[in-house]
Amino acid sequence: MKTFIILSLLISQTLIAKADVLPTWKDGENKQAIIKFVEKVIDKKSPEYVKPEDRIATFDNDGTLWSEVPTVEVEFTKMRLKEMIQKDPKLAQKEPYKSLVMHKKSPPKLNQKEMMEVFATTHAGMNENEFAQSVKGFFQQAKHPKLNVPYTQTAYKPMLELISYLKENEFSVFICSGGDTSFMRVVATEIYGIPSQNIIGTSLKDKTVEKDGKLSVIRTDKLDLLNDKEGKPVGINRQIGKRPIFAAGNVRSGGDIDHLRYSKEGALPSLQLMINHDDAKRESAYNEKDNQSLNMAKKYGWKIISIKDDWGDVFSKTKVEVSTNE
Amino acid sequence: MKTFIILSLLISQTLIAKADVLPTWKDGENKQAIIKFVEKVIDKKSPEYVKPEDRIATFDNDGTLWSEVPTVEVEFTKMRLKEMIQKDPKLAQKEPYKSLVMHKKSPPKLNQKEMMEVFATTHAGMNENEFAQSVKGFFQQAKHPKLNVPYTQTAYKPMLELISYLKENEFSVFICSGGDTSFMRVVATEIYGIPSQNIIGTSLKDKTVEKDGKLSVIRTDKLDLLNDKEGKPVGINRQIGKRPIFAAGNVRSGGDIDHLRYSKEGALPSLQLMINHDDAKRESAYNEKDNQSLNMAKKYGWKIISIKDDWGDVFSKTKVEVSTNE
Repeated sequence: MKTFIILSLLISQTLIAKADVLPTWKDGENKQAIIKFVEKVIDKKSPEYVKPEDRIATFDNDGTLWSEVPTVEVEFTKMRLKEMIQKDPKLAQKEPYKSLVMHKKSPPKLNQKEMMEVFATTHAGMNENEFAQSVKGFFQQAKHPKLNVPYTQTAYKPMLELISYLKENEFSVFICSGGDTSFMRVVATEIYGIPSQNIIGTSLKDKTVEKDGKLSVIRTDKLDLLNDKEGKPVGINRQIGKRPIFAAGNVRSGGDIDHLRYSKEGALPSLQLMINHDDAKRESAYNEKDNQSLNMAKKYGWKIISIKDDWGDVFSKTKVEVSTNE
Repeated sequence: MKTFIILSLLISQTLIAKADVLPTWKDGENKQAIIKFVEKVIDKKSPEYVKPEDRIATFDNDGTLWSEVPTVEVEFTKMRLKEMIQKDPKLAQKEPYKSLVMHKKSPPKLNQKEMMEVFATTHAGMNENEFAQSVKGFFQQAKHPKLNVPYTQTAYKPMLELISYLKENEFSVFICSGGDTSFMRVVATEIYGIPSQNIIGTSLKDKTVEKDGKLSVIRTDKLDLLNDKEGKPVGINRQIGKRPIFAAGNVRSGGDIDHLRYSKEGALPSLQLMINHDDAKRESAYNEKDNQSLNMAKKYGWKIISIKDDWGDVFSKTKVEVSTNE
């Protein structure tokens, strides 16, 4: 009798656990495809079993894990620029800073060289602690203009569930984003539960310096890696050394096409998600002009995730503490 | 009574567990310092408690985790050079290859530029799979000249125990070596239980290429990072984004001084080991001319580990399988 009760309890717990998988995802083909994929690669008896050490998952950040309207790091860059101009007003007379400062509402489109210059100017010259403090200051003040909450509360709830689900099934989960690695590291553990060593992003070349008898690593203004488009496989290979068997990105710039192809074209079973921003009401509706990301998704068999149709809710409103100490 | 038996069992198991910690390390000040440090940082009641996500440990590889007499990757480089000369005999007429080929027993000392050229020539031009296959071929054939076992069996037994001990206590364990990252990745999981994403080493710049409709990452002959001396803090910050609270290196070239300083000069409690090769009988006896590594160890309070006095046994003779498939 006792055994029977224990067995019944175990079975009902298993059923509850199953029913609870990805609760914010609406039932449908995409949710089922994700669950089916995970169950297949963790099943030792399946011909598509994948060993835990090869269960690598990579997620783009802006537009895949949190809102990119506006892009959070661009908002940080504007704040840094403002601080820098207060200290050195001459900066506001120089291009491309002048145009940026003049057009507050809709800043001019910069070419890649100008963008890299603004990136280097606002992100370089600090050591790792000083930069982290600057980023923390931003996250403590800034709010999302439409949602009116700190940016740390703009993560997508369904994606947080997906990260947890993969981790529970012994996946190593990484961010693979065009954003600056050190910028994301400041909040990625608190928001996503992803540790600093699992963040792959764009980086500036560092160098070791000695100050007051102590070593630290300082950010130079030279680009180390632009982790976007064809840079993503490079970043993944450099930091992980394995192809992801699960990869997620989103439409906007085509920045994740090579990321998802690199996953799909590996030797192991794999699944890719391309998130489509088609929900103007709850989030934002946008796509790239040439429709390239969606076309590639169809060509390669990636799952197109519709925010409107696949997600029961969009934003995690969970409060996230950004500590002030080092 | 039942409770008493369970309690007794628990206590005796704890005692057994304690007695089993680092069994190949001889009892003494250094072994006690390691255990005391770990027990302190995992104890939530201790003022020196460190959260699991900050328990980062970094180990140099050559001379710290396995034998570096001869340096394994230099032996691989010689094998690659031989293969390349067989395909292109003209290479043997060009310097620095000519001198290398002429002096088989004691190759000439190359300057850094020549070394980098040989490194790039023998390590570049392949994609990630091709390079891994080449390294696997080496490990399946080559043997340590003195020990007469495959190089995969030349890991230090006390260090394997130390890695396991740290992992059991929720440390994230990384290799931080001057060796090539992709070279080490081929065997590090099998030998040390350290996954490919936890290997920080010297790297060549990669680029994404498309061949037969598939993307892969190919190794160019341009240096990405020389992960030695002042390059080690850069490699650590780039890949982990946190300072290690436990770091181990060895005497020979001063290559680990900045590595250990970067750990020691962090904000959290930390411990550093400097391994001294003083055991000509069981391993090798060597030091750098200016004694810099040992001097720095004394200056900064790093533990100097004597292979002769601190290790009851040196080599793990455990057989390691190097798989042939991709």
